[in-house]
Amino acid sequence: MAVNFTVFDAFLPIDGVRLGVAQAGVRYANRDDLVVMEIADGAHVAGVFTRNAFCAAPVTLCQQHLQQAQPRYVLINTGNANAGTGKSGFANAEASCRMLAAATGVEPQHVLPFSTGVIGEPLNMAAFERGIPLALANLSEDNWARAARGIMTTDTLPKGYSSECDIDGHRVRITGISKGAGMIMPNMATMLGYIATDAYIAESILQDWCRQLADCSFNRITIDGDTSTNDSCLLIATGRSGVRIEDVNSDAASALFTELKATFQRLAQAIVRDGEGATKFVTIAVEQAATQQEALDVAYTVAHSPLVKTAMFASDANWGRILAAVGRSGVQNFDLERVQIFIDDVQIVEDGGRCERYQEALGAAVFAKTEFTVTIQLGRGDVREALWTCDFSHEYVTINANYRS
Amino acid sequence: MAVNFTVFDAFLPIDGVRLGVAQAGVRYANRDDLVVMEIADGAHVAGVFTRNAFCAAPVTLCQQHLQQAQPRYVLINTGNANAGTGKSGFANAEASCRMLAAATGVEPQHVLPFSTGVIGEPLNMAAFERGIPLALANLSEDNWARAARGIMTTDTLPKGYSSECDIDGHRVRITGISKGAGMIMPNMATMLGYIATDAYIAESILQDWCRQLADCSFNRITIDGDTSTNDSCLLIATGRSGVRIEDVNSDAASALFTELKATFQRLAQAIVRDGEGATKFVTIAVEQAATQQEALDVAYTVAHSPLVKTAMFASDANWGRILAAVGRSGVQNFDLERVQIFIDDVQIVEDGGRCERYQEALGAAVFAKTEFTVTIQLGRGDVREALWTCDFSHEYVTINANYRS
Repeated sequence: MAVNFTVFDAFLPIDGVRLGVAQAGVRYANRDDLVVMEIADGAHVAGVFTRNAFCAAPVTLCQQHLQQAQPRYVLINTGNANAGTGKSGFANAEASCRMLAAATGVEPQHVLPFSTGVIGEPLNMAAFERGIPLALANLSEDNWARAARGIMTTDTLPKGYSSECDIDGHRVRITGISKGAGMIMPNMATMLGYIATDAYIAESILQDWCRQLADCSFNRITIDGDTSTNDSCLLIATGRSGVRIEDVNSDAASALFTELKATFQRLAQAIVRDGEGATKFVTIAVEQAATQQEALDVAYTVAHSPLVKTAMFASDANWGRILAAVGRSGVQNFDLERVQIFIDDVQIVEDGGRCERYQEALGAAVFAKTEFTVTIQLGRGDVREALWTCDFSHEYVTINANYRS
Repeated sequence: MAVNFTVFDAFLPIDGVRLGVAQAGVRYANRDDLVVMEIADGAHVAGVFTRNAFCAAPVTLCQQHLQQAQPRYVLINTGNANAGTGKSGFANAEASCRMLAAATGVEPQHVLPFSTGVIGEPLNMAAFERGIPLALANLSEDNWARAARGIMTTDTLPKGYSSECDIDGHRVRITGISKGAGMIMPNMATMLGYIATDAYIAESILQDWCRQLADCSFNRITIDGDTSTNDSCLLIATGRSGVRIEDVNSDAASALFTELKATFQRLAQAIVRDGEGATKFVTIAVEQAATQQEALDVAYTVAHSPLVKTAMFASDANWGRILAAVGRSGVQNFDLERVQIFIDDVQIVEDGGRCERYQEALGAAVFAKTEFTVTIQLGRGDVREALWTCDFSHEYVTINANYRS
């Protein structure tokens, strides 16, 4: 039951990226579960990875390979996260890279491995032996839509987006896919995002951009506060379009960054819209904070409050719960008489207390919508942060309590 | 559907404390909702209060009165938290103290006010005018059981406990009551605890003890991670038993502290057992931590993970979710290969990976129980912390989504 979710079906191929998809049988039969991405020589690639201390074997290996060599292949499997699998899990991740390297004539460190699915079970290596040749056999620039489905786990819908724009007289394309629907399922974890552009982006700029873009997109969404062991995001710049970003302060850089940001945010928001059991898509905006950290602390505390989330599910504009969450967010020397809270344009809290003009009917009308914004003004500075979340429904409990049973 | 909860009905009166209870009609008719506690002259009283920045008016006033004068009366209402009510809320809290003071011949600062219930609505002062004389009319040492019911909000069962022991040849009694069942209901917030003993405890010791006792009891429970605007806990020592605690290092002090701790923990655990929608009572123990802070960070991250809590509800020993929660708890320089995780005596994670001896059937047998302990050993030091929590059920969503509707 995704919220205002439209499946994107107008993928633009990116010159320099081909995708192959296979039914490898990693965990389930008869579904695409192995994706190979071939990246042309000369492309630049940057990645951002989970901060979970228990990061999965492929995450560790992927980061090593990114440092050692130019990436030529991406290898993604669903069905098994290869996390919590110790040394044999790491060896399996290495073996999977060796298999793809051998089949394509590159070195293993040119392969970036990604896994998502069940934690703690050994990777089914026979599936890789079976699936890699199948995926390589259908490598195509036009396989983005199938790849978007091929990386799904508990997602109900595939997530992707493409855009193009003119920069410096050249047509530039961006295409991306993502997956993730909670932290997630019992063990079916992980947010994954792969975004490619045919622009050239200098390596020194690319890694900074990837971090900045993830921070304003994938790092600003939360379904349930749980962080997966496998979260990863990759930004690929093939350089085939003729546009060259070598000066981060150029107009071209600014234009491309804006375009990339829109794609990153769309892919991130799609994960929330398809959040486990989600019935509402809610923006939590914190304004007038003294620091970015306190803005985020307040926003996450509100977004993670089960009481706020169940009130959203119930379309109950329960401002007391929002106020209580703001109050426990750990902001030091908090002057609550400066706090204003709005839902869309309806003010519910004025100077720390119930707004006199507020009427239940006004709040109920906003909370009844499938999308709205909660704005919390702290009156402490001029920093603003926003993040996107969803409500907490019976369906969430059902999904997360029934898996594996 | 409380978990292994036995209603306590053998309250021991505490010499120096009398309780009066009334149907004041604060929010609902025909239920006890006003409790007055009369404390004998010469008693010492200490309190611990919510750290929520948006603490309610009575919490602020109560702390002021505690500093200004010796408490002689406690005034508790349910049905309205008098929180988020601004200056008029503070004036109402003051007015309620004045009413009780006038009726009993003390000064207003001798009265400690407590409120629990809906946030953001003006206190019904007519109910206090009506209820205070009624409560004073039935003041009695034997009213603890009725008072335990009189402070309930969304609790399904009243919470209380009494014990007695011999210290220095004197019989010493302890009796306490508590309430709280989530953070809680939309607006029906608050954990409250009132514990009285007939021992004499020097004031310098009492405040320290109250903080320490709350820290190992009420501050070690969590239902949903939400902290109320009204949480409060009071420790009253009337000094009528003949036992005098003036040296914190004496055997008598040690014996009484141990006895008080058992009562505090029972009252705190009763809140979890009666947690909103709870079907399991779970102890989260973190051992071998380097610091108390990291032990608590890990324990709370696991206890608050909706994925862990829904797995508990489903009786699914989903160790991957526990591992992932440990990994995102923010511990610095975490060596995951030192982590061991047990559920009761079944080891599920060994040296950071799935324990080879572990079998699903063993884990399932533990998770099927209504009470069990998750033990996480970090291999970083020798600090241990434990806290108590419950699972996350459909009933939780129902309770918190349906209130006010």
